[in-house]
This record gives sequence, structure tokens and C-alpha cells, in this order.
Amino acid sequence: MYNEHVRAKVWVSLKKTVLDPQGQTIHAALAGLGYNGVQGVRQGKYFELSLADSLNADAARAEVDRLARDVLTNPVIEEYSFQIEDAPK
Amino acid sequence: MYNEHVRAKVWVSLKKTVLDPQGQTIHAALAGLGYNGVQGVRQGKYFELSLADSLNADAARAEVDRLARDVLTNPVIEEYSFQIEDAPK
Repeated sequence: MYNEHVRAKVWVSLKKTVLDPQGQTIHAALAGLGYNGVQGVRQGKYFELSLADSLNADAARAEVDRLARDVLTNPVIEEYSFQIEDAPK
Repeated sequence: MYNEHVRAKVWVSLKKTVLDPQGQTIHAALAGLGYNGVQGVRQGKYFELSLADSLNADAARAEVDRLARDVLTNPVIEEYSFQIEDAPK
């Protein structure tokens, strides 16, 4: 199903100024396992959307921007970025 | 802190053959909110790692590949990809 459609990738991360205890826990676990090259970890969310073929590139961009901002992201503590792939000609 | 170091981005997603109820829930919620251009959603995890300056590009790549495979990913149901950024010269 996914290869037939335009896809969008959306990343939602905590703002840099917001404490990330989940990332800190992962960082501590990695250090305990001997991964000493890692100096910090922040965890975020990743969404892969499959979009209707009827959307052109501009419409897809607008739709994804709107839903990422209004639904997927908590604007108080999070920020998002996204990328549209395989937009129809 | 994060801008001073080499960074790596790691994405962990459910394998395409694995059911993603969380993504289906988000898809249903988006449809209910009127985002009709979205035909499917899959949710994954996203990690941003800050790496020691002492790692060169090859060492960083090897370290991140190993920790992504061994720690961040459940190989039974998940797959990962990663990207190293700003590798030191």
C-alpha cells in the first residue's frame, strides 16, 4: 500500500530548551553498556504518512504542515519538521 | 551542547509487515478531523544522538550502527536507519 502513494515523513522532537528524561535514561543505559562515544540522546517521534494521489505537491505540503502543527505536535514543548517524498508530477 | 558535536539521527520503525495499531488510531483521528488526504499513518521513534568529538566519521558510523541495532531496535518487529551529520574533517 505504501509504495503506491505520495509519502510524507514528519519528525516531532522536544524543543531544545525542554528537559528530555527519556533521552537521558537511554543515554545512561548506553553508557552502562559501554557506548562511550555518545554524549547525549534526545528522543522524538517519527510519522510516515501515505497521502492520496489526488493531492499535488503543494496541496500535500499544505495538508501535512497543517496536521503536523495542529495534531501531531504539542506546540508548548515540541517542534516539528517534515518532508514530502515522491510527489506526483 | 548539541551544536558542538557530531550528531546522528536514528529512525526506528515497525517493519512493513507488522500491524501498527498506534498509527491506525492516529489515522482514524486525522480522518475524523477532516484530513481526508491521509491514507495511512505509521508511527516510529526518532533519536538524535550527540557524539564525542574524538570519533571520526567511520568510528561514529560503526558506533551508531551497533547501538541502533543492539539497543534501540527490536529486530523481531522493527527496522532502523540512521544518518551521521557534521562529521569532523
